[in-house]
Amino acid sequence: MRIGVFGTGMVGEALGTRLVELGHDVIMGSRTADNAKGAAWATRAGARASTGTFADAAAKSELVFNCTSGGASLEVVAQAGAANLEGKILIDVANPLDYSKGMPPTLLYTNDDSLGERLQNALPATKVVKTLNTVNCAVMVDPSRVPEEHAIFVCGNDDDAKARVRELLVAFGWRDIIDLGGITSARATEGLMPIWLRLYGLFKTADFNFKLVRKIP
Amino acid sequence: MRIGVFGTGMVGEALGTRLVELGHDVIMGSRTADNAKGAAWATRAGARASTGTFADAAAKSELVFNCTSGGASLEVVAQAGAANLEGKILIDVANPLDYSKGMPPTLLYTNDDSLGERLQNALPATKVVKTLNTVNCAVMVDPSRVPEEHAIFVCGNDDDAKARVRELLVAFGWRDIIDLGGITSARATEGLMPIWLRLYGLFKTADFNFKLVRKIP
Repeated sequence: MRIGVFGTGMVGEALGTRLVELGHDVIMGSRTADNAKGAAWATRAGARASTGTFADAAAKSELVFNCTSGGASLEVVAQAGAANLEGKILIDVANPLDYSKGMPPTLLYTNDDSLGERLQNALPATKVVKTLNTVNCAVMVDPSRVPEEHAIFVCGNDDDAKARVRELLVAFGWRDIIDLGGITSARATEGLMPIWLRLYGLFKTADFNFKLVRKIP
Repeated sequence: MRIGVFGTGMVGEALGTRLVELGHDVIMGSRTADNAKGAAWATRAGARASTGTFADAAAKSELVFNCTSGGASLEVVAQAGAANLEGKILIDVANPLDYSKGMPPTLLYTNDDSLGERLQNALPATKVVKTLNTVNCAVMVDPSRVPEEHAIFVCGNDDDAKARVRELLVAFGWRDIIDLGGITSARATEGLMPIWLRLYGLFKTADFNFKLVRKIP
């Protein structure tokens, strides 16, 4: 599949590299076509990897991962262009963290709002699926870094889009994939950030996750 | 120990009954001394159980559980009287849920605020410990209802108070007790409500919880 990755940071690199390993053609998008970090990644990642602007990455792909920092994501999709994302799946793995008030960061949107919903509202002709935002990027693409079968959540309004995203998650190694419903449930998964950040401070490792233990009725 | 329980609802009943079973003397507090639900509970729970006003329950106890609905809790501790709670431990198991905007409920306080902190600010001479608010009341007092060793969190500014609360949690059956730090971390555990409520809808049982799986470095 031709897959776009918005963002040249740790998250974009981890996802881009793993997607290339799985045999996909990946174009990493950034603000400018000549982004040095993107170019260095494409050189390392091999022939299936390329770079371009956000608009290039969107236009040339069937499906796009949003790996930009959450506070910038709405501006990034505006730069990518709604027309370039029309009818496509946008997988949003970002969290709308606000670092301006000190550590740990707080959330820009809470309670009756979320980044996932804002992206869906900004791109009504795109199928936004929120997932993977509740784990560190190394765990996103290799859940076996954490013991046992821990959980990953998917939220989105389009069931076919969620089924396609589930296939990618299974390819990454995920097993306990929990569908929380429509994109408004992104409120619930973004809302895990405050406890995730505190547990990260406590455990001194990002190789952890939530496992949902329950009696199967 | 002489323990007060604020609230005559399901949560207060579950905790009051379990504390009596463990050999404690429990006084259940409500707005009026002649509350019918409180009286019925005390009759069922036996000789170690009694009832009174919130002020009675606070004055006659060494330690108090706040099991009132989160939206009413600040008014309840005002009725109980700060002097009656001075130097004592208040264990806050409530969540500040707002049902006025439909289902699922939202949170009254988010991000840089929490009920735990508000209670601590209202009662500066009391040691507020937030715990148990991330599970259903049946699981609070009997974690074996859920398989495996799942997690419970404690937050509070006073380490001695948290150590005493930990003893009670161990008596209830809890093993993976995670200290998240000061009372501001109540933001993180109250912030689990949005995902807890959605998972409850999905699993059709309240007998579930989060297990923290991690590599021990």
